[in-house]
Amino acid sequence: MEKSISKPVSIYALGGLGEVGKNMYCFENENQIVIIDCGVKFPGVELPGIDYIVPDFTHLKNNKNKIRALIITHGHEDHIGGIPFLIQHVNIPVIYAPRLASALIKSRLEEYRIADRVNIVEYDSDTKIKLGDFNVSFFRVTHSIPDSFGVVLDTSEGRIVSTGDFKVDLTPIGPDIELQKIAELGREGVDLLLSDSTNAENEGYTPSEKNVFDSINEIFNDAQGRIVVSTFSSNISRIQQICESAVAHGRKIVIVGRSMEKVVEIARGFGYIKIPDNSIIPSTDIKQYRNSEILILCTGSQGEPNAALSRIAAGEHKDVKIIPGDTVVFSSSAIPGNGIMIAHIVNLLTRCGADCITNSILADIHSSGHPSKQELRLVLKLFNPKYFMPMHGEYRMLRLHAEIATSLGIPAENCFVLDNGDVLTLAKHKVTRGYAVEHGVSYIDGKDINGLNDAVIEDRKALTNDGMMIVAVSIDSNANTLIGEPVIFNRGVIQINITKTIEECSSLVGKAVREKLATKTNFAELKIVIKNVADKYLYAKTQRHPMIIPVIMNKN
Amino acid sequence: MEKSISKPVSIYALGGLGEVGKNMYCFENENQIVIIDCGVKFPGVELPGIDYIVPDFTHLKNNKNKIRALIITHGHEDHIGGIPFLIQHVNIPVIYAPRLASALIKSRLEEYRIADRVNIVEYDSDTKIKLGDFNVSFFRVTHSIPDSFGVVLDTSEGRIVSTGDFKVDLTPIGPDIELQKIAELGREGVDLLLSDSTNAENEGYTPSEKNVFDSINEIFNDAQGRIVVSTFSSNISRIQQICESAVAHGRKIVIVGRSMEKVVEIARGFGYIKIPDNSIIPSTDIKQYRNSEILILCTGSQGEPNAALSRIAAGEHKDVKIIPGDTVVFSSSAIPGNGIMIAHIVNLLTRCGADCITNSILADIHSSGHPSKQELRLVLKLFNPKYFMPMHGEYRMLRLHAEIATSLGIPAENCFVLDNGDVLTLAKHKVTRGYAVEHGVSYIDGKDINGLNDAVIEDRKALTNDGMMIVAVSIDSNANTLIGEPVIFNRGVIQINITKTIEECSSLVGKAVREKLATKTNFAELKIVIKNVADKYLYAKTQRHPMIIPVIMNKN
Repeated sequence: MEKSISKPVSIYALGGLGEVGKNMYCFENENQIVIIDCGVKFPGVELPGIDYIVPDFTHLKNNKNKIRALIITHGHEDHIGGIPFLIQHVNIPVIYAPRLASALIKSRLEEYRIADRVNIVEYDSDTKIKLGDFNVSFFRVTHSIPDSFGVVLDTSEGRIVSTGDFKVDLTPIGPDIELQKIAELGREGVDLLLSDSTNAENEGYTPSEKNVFDSINEIFNDAQGRIVVSTFSSNISRIQQICESAVAHGRKIVIVGRSMEKVVEIARGFGYIKIPDNSIIPSTDIKQYRNSEILILCTGSQGEPNAALSRIAAGEHKDVKIIPGDTVVFSSSAIPGNGIMIAHIVNLLTRCGADCITNSILADIHSSGHPSKQELRLVLKLFNPKYFMPMHGEYRMLRLHAEIATSLGIPAENCFVLDNGDVLTLAKHKVTRGYAVEHGVSYIDGKDINGLNDAVIEDRKALTNDGMMIVAVSIDSNANTLIGEPVIFNRGVIQINITKTIEECSSLVGKAVREKLATKTNFAELKIVIKNVADKYLYAKTQRHPMIIPVIMNKN
Repeated sequence: MEKSISKPVSIYALGGLGEVGKNMYCFENENQIVIIDCGVKFPGVELPGIDYIVPDFTHLKNNKNKIRALIITHGHEDHIGGIPFLIQHVNIPVIYAPRLASALIKSRLEEYRIADRVNIVEYDSDTKIKLGDFNVSFFRVTHSIPDSFGVVLDTSEGRIVSTGDFKVDLTPIGPDIELQKIAELGREGVDLLLSDSTNAENEGYTPSEKNVFDSINEIFNDAQGRIVVSTFSSNISRIQQICESAVAHGRKIVIVGRSMEKVVEIARGFGYIKIPDNSIIPSTDIKQYRNSEILILCTGSQGEPNAALSRIAAGEHKDVKIIPGDTVVFSSSAIPGNGIMIAHIVNLLTRCGADCITNSILADIHSSGHPSKQELRLVLKLFNPKYFMPMHGEYRMLRLHAEIATSLGIPAENCFVLDNGDVLTLAKHKVTRGYAVEHGVSYIDGKDINGLNDAVIEDRKALTNDGMMIVAVSIDSNANTLIGEPVIFNRGVIQINITKTIEECSSLVGKAVREKLATKTNFAELKIVIKNVADKYLYAKTQRHPMIIPVIMNKN
C-alpha cells in the first residue's frame, strides 16, 4: 500500500527565469524543500547605488522548517553569491557543493564573518545523497569553471534532472562531460528536464576552450612587448590556459586585482591552476624583467570602473603603467550594457600606445561557457525527457529553447516556459501547472539584505532626473504664524534664473502657508500646501518637476 | 606681390574628435571662420536628465564677427542638431545645406520658433560658393540619408577636403557617389584630407543598401501575418526601401511615431520616398485590413523607452497591439549601451507572440552608412592627400584610420590624430600643429543651452548613489541658541534602523551646534559643523555618504 501514496513534488524558481542571474530552483513536497543554487544578479545602471540583487526569500522563510539542503552546481556568483544573504534569513541544514565551489563559498562567508553558520559538504561525480524523500546524484559537465555538475533528483513521483550551467566541450580544459552517464539516465527515463537556456539564440556549437587556448598561444608567439590579459576572475579554466601559455613562453606572471589574486590562490591550492612558484612575481618586480618576459593578468575585461584594468588604463595603478608596445587582450565578450565602458578603456589604452585585442577583433580569444542550439539538441536527445522546462535565461531564450524541444518531438504541451514563482507539479510521472509561490527581488547595498526597498530606489531615480528643492518654513504653532519667509535650497536643479525663481517661489509658498495657518490645520496639510504651490510654480517656470521636500520647523 | 601674402588657415574641431557625435569642424584665417556641420550627441545614462550634448561655442562667441557661414554636409542630428543652440549665441550669416537637410533644419527651427533667425541657402553637387578667402565646392557621396556631400575648401594656402559622413556604395538607393570628381580632385592635388573614421575598425567593405533591400524583400515574401519594421527616422534610404517593398507586396503602410511621421512627410514632399497616397493608412484603420496587408513602420529599434516600438511592446499604444503571428524587424544594429534596452523590448514582444528579427539573427537587415577599411583605403588613394586628419570617431578609430593612411604611404608625420580643440595650421601647402582653441561641452536639458553645469550633474549623481539627508536646525541668532532639536529628513537613504539612526544623529548635531553657538560663529561655520558631524556619524553607522544638506532657519 505505502508505495502507492503520492507525494506530489512542486518545482519552481525563485530566480533565474526571465533573466540571466540569481539562479535558484526549488523542489518541494509535503515534507521537505531541496534548493539548487542560490545566486546573485548584478544590477544595471537603472538601479543606482545597488550592489546585488537576490531573490526574495519570503516563501522559504514561511516554510523554513521544510528546508532540507541547498545543492550548489558550481562556483559562479550567479549560483553561489546569494548564500550569505539567504542564511541571514533561514537555516540551511547543509550545503552540498563541489570542491572548488565549496572553497569559494567558504572564502566569501569568511568575508562576511559568518562561515561558522554553515555546514558545507563536498560532493563529487559519484556521490549519492539521500535527502528525505529524494535521492540525489550528479553528473559532471563542462563549463568555464572546473567542478561543474548537473543534478539528478529521484523522487517517489519520478525523476527530475537539472543540467546546471554547461556546454558540451569535446576538447575541454579539464575532465570531460559525462555523456555516457547522461545517456544512461535518458535510457532509464527522465520525467522532467531543466536545461540551461543562456545561449539558446546561438546557432551551431559553442567553440571549445581548445580554440581559445590556440588563439592565446598565438598571441604569446607573436607579442614582442608585455602582454596584459584581462578576463573574469570566475573563468578559472581561462585563467589556467593563460597562465600555462605564459609559463611555456618564459613569461613571469603578475596578478593584479584582489579578486583575481584570491581566485588564483584558491584554484592553485586545489591544483586546478598549475603555476611554479617562481613564475609568479609581485607587480613591484616588473622592472627587473624585459618586456618580453612579462604577463600581467587582471580583471576588468568588461570595463568595470573599479577593476584593475580600468585603474591601469587611467594611469592610476601604482606599479603597472601601460607603455607603447604592450598588447592588451580582452578575453571575454561584452555583456550587454558594457560596450561603452569597454570602448572607453580601449580608447585610454590605445592613447597610451597599447595594441588592444578584443573579442570583436579576434573572435577566438573568448568562448562562452554555455551551450548553443546544437548542444541543446544533443542533450535533449540524450536525456529524452517526457517534460521539459527551459531554465536560466531571458524570456526569448527560454521560448527559443522550448521551440528547439518541440522541434525534436517533445509535445508543445509538455514544454513549460515559466516565470519566477510559477509552479509545476510532478505527480505519478505527470507534470501539470500549479499555483504560484511568493517571489520577487531584494536589493543589496553593502552586506545587509534589508534597508533598500522600491521606494528608496524610486526616490533615487527621481532625484537623478530633475534634482530637488527643499522648502523649509519655520512656524510658531501656538500663534499659528509663519516666522520669516520660507527658505529654499536646491540641488541638481536646472540653474536658469535660479535666484529669481527661488525668490518668487519662496514668496508664493509663504503666502500660501500664512493663509493655511489662518485656518485650523496640521503639519501634514501644510506639507501638501507647500509641495503643491512649489511644484506648480516650478513646473510653470522650468517645465520640470524636481522633488519638493517640505521641511517644517516648529518653534514650540 | 599680393598673391604671395600668406594667410594661414587654422583647422580644428569643436566636436567630433575622440567621440562619435556633435560634429563641428572649423576653418579659420585672420579674416574669417567657415564652419562645417553643427551636431548634437545623445548622452548616456551617466548624464541623468540631459537631453543633448553640444560643443562649447565659446571660441566662436569670442570670434563671432569672423563667422562667415555654416556648411551642412547632410541632414543627420549629429551634423545639424546643434544649430538651434548655436544660433542662440552667435549670428550665422548664412547656412548652406543640401535640399533635404535644409528642410529638416527648417522644421527643427520652427519647433523652437526661431526659423526666422536663419538664412538657409540650398546647394547641390555643382554649386560653387565664394566665401571671402575660401572657394567652396562639393562632391556627392553615398550615405544612409539622401543628399549627403563632401566639401572642398580652396584657400590661398592650399586645398582642404572634408568627406563628411559617407560610404562607397556601388549599388546605392539613389544617386552614385561622385568617384570621378573625387579622382579629379586628387589628380589636381589635395593638401589636407579630413575623412570619416566611424567604421575604421571594420574589415573589408560595408555592405550595400542593395543587400538590405534584398533581405527586407525576403521578409515581405515570407511573412504571413503583419510586419512591424522599426528603424531610425533619420535613415531615409532605409525607410524608402521598406515602403517600396510594402507597396510592391500590397501592404498598407501605418506610420507610428511623431518623428517618423515628420520625416516621411518631408521626404515624400521632395520625392525621396515614393508612396501612393492610398498606401498610407492611419493606425485607427488597421482592423479594416487582413494581417497580411499591413506594414507598421515605427521608431524605437534601439529600445528607446519613449519611442513607438517600446509603447507598442508594452501594450501602451492606443491602436497598435502586438498579436501572435506578427513579425517585428529591428532594422538597425545595437548602438553600444543599448543592448539591454533592446533585449527588454524583444522579450516583451516575444511574450506577446511576435517573431523578432534583429541584426544578430539576420545580419543583412541593416547596413552601416559609414565606410569600412577597404573603402577608406580607396578614398585615400583617390584623394591622395599630402596631409591627413582622420575625423568623426573615438580615439581608437582615429588611430586605426591614421594607420591605414600610413600603410598606404602617407608619412606618419603627415597624419594628425587630434582631439577637439587641437589646431592644425595650413600655410603655403604645409600643415603644422598650432595652439589649441577653447573647447568643451554644453549640456542641454530641454530647449535652453544654459542652466546645466558640471556641478548640477555631479549633484544629481551624488544624490543617485547614496541618497541624501537634510539636517535642519532652527536657531535664534540674537540669543545664540538652538531652538528645539535638529530635524532630519532623508530620501533615497538605506533604511536599516533608520529611526534610531536619525534620532542619534539629530542629538549629536544638536550638541555640536549648541557648542558652536556658544562661541562666536557664523552660518557658514555652522553648516560645516552640521555636515561634518552628520557625515561622520552616518558613515560609521551605514558605511555610506549620503549627501548632507544643512538647513539653518534663523528666528530673526
